[in-house]
Amino acid sequence: MVKYLLFDIDDTLFPSTEFSALARKNALNAMISMGLDDDFDPINARLLSIIEKKGSNYPGHFNDLCSQLGIQEPGKYIAAAVAAYHDTKTSIAPFPKVPPTLLRLRESGYRLYIATQGNSIKQWDKLIRLRIALYFEGVFVSEELREDKGPAFYKKVLSALDAKAGDCMMVGDREDTDIAPARAVGMKTVRVLSGRQATLPTKADFVIKDISEIIPILRDL
Amino acid sequence: MVKYLLFDIDDTLFPSTEFSALARKNALNAMISMGLDDDFDPINARLLSIIEKKGSNYPGHFNDLCSQLGIQEPGKYIAAAVAAYHDTKTSIAPFPKVPPTLLRLRESGYRLYIATQGNSIKQWDKLIRLRIALYFEGVFVSEELREDKGPAFYKKVLSALDAKAGDCMMVGDREDTDIAPARAVGMKTVRVLSGRQATLPTKADFVIKDISEIIPILRDL
Repeated sequence: MVKYLLFDIDDTLFPSTEFSALARKNALNAMISMGLDDDFDPINARLLSIIEKKGSNYPGHFNDLCSQLGIQEPGKYIAAAVAAYHDTKTSIAPFPKVPPTLLRLRESGYRLYIATQGNSIKQWDKLIRLRIALYFEGVFVSEELREDKGPAFYKKVLSALDAKAGDCMMVGDREDTDIAPARAVGMKTVRVLSGRQATLPTKADFVIKDISEIIPILRDL
Repeated sequence: MVKYLLFDIDDTLFPSTEFSALARKNALNAMISMGLDDDFDPINARLLSIIEKKGSNYPGHFNDLCSQLGIQEPGKYIAAAVAAYHDTKTSIAPFPKVPPTLLRLRESGYRLYIATQGNSIKQWDKLIRLRIALYFEGVFVSEELREDKGPAFYKKVLSALDAKAGDCMMVGDREDTDIAPARAVGMKTVRVLSGRQATLPTKADFVIKDISEIIPILRDL
């Protein structure tokens, strides 16, 4: 019987992809407000190409953009961009039915955990900004477990919980890091149709559009 | 005749010392809200001692605090502390008469510059957060000039402005980095009585309690 519910964060509990695009847009507009004499579309195209080349976790996107634009004293533009970017990233909000669904699951006796890829403090920061950190008994972050979100990661989760795979259900938006590896170790899986992989085929046990659909799924199990 | 006005930022244009203390307090309270089972006063004493030992620009204050407290999985506490700290630091506001005074000085034809110690992007970030960045024609930051705020720093400022020392007035709260070295190169000086050096004796040409007092000083020169 399912007792442990594991949730991915990005694009599962909040629209991460959308917020990232908005943060970039706000950052570029802040540079223009600070006096940068360029139009949005060409500098946005440059920024996207920098992100594609250097990866989204590279910390020098705006520095590179300024040097491509030949800006001699980039301090004010970088500061304006980073401030606007951070302001957007710190104003993230969960998908609207996430908080009441989490509360209902706790009331029903389920034990809630996070299973997420990335840096421990960054992922905790998201839970805190989303105001949902206290709903979770624990957080499994790939960096702390020293395993990317593949089968070995989910095995470590099972042993940390001292749980059988059949007692666990993994909820996430990605087939490669959420559904396939959790399924490979025997967990039940729920695929949320959001984010960049929304149109990919899935082998998940259940497919939902909204997180609240978990409640009837668990009731019917 | 004074034409160029140079301003320090911290404790001159906004109550920096006060905001730093508030940011630390909010950070520790956020750790307690996240479930840390300690009282404010003892953890605050520990934090202050860490800051004293490692300096205020050391980035690992909360990491060190967590390891002193023997916290095994510090991610959530560090994330909560840093988020609250940053939220406070990004909500800084200028001393109330700063924006109208800067506007009036611009209207009167003065050319306004910043002369500040520290990291270029951090200092620009403050001007942006304070919503006063556009009042200034330029910003001289010690990091970019490769000189701490001593006489050599102010000489470089004079040569960048292509100005005579007698045409410049430096406004700041610190005797050691604002008043003494600006005076040493021949600038006029205004000491603002705020911050940690407020009670030290001064050799400044003028002493003010509120930034708006600059207007009558310039009128009477």
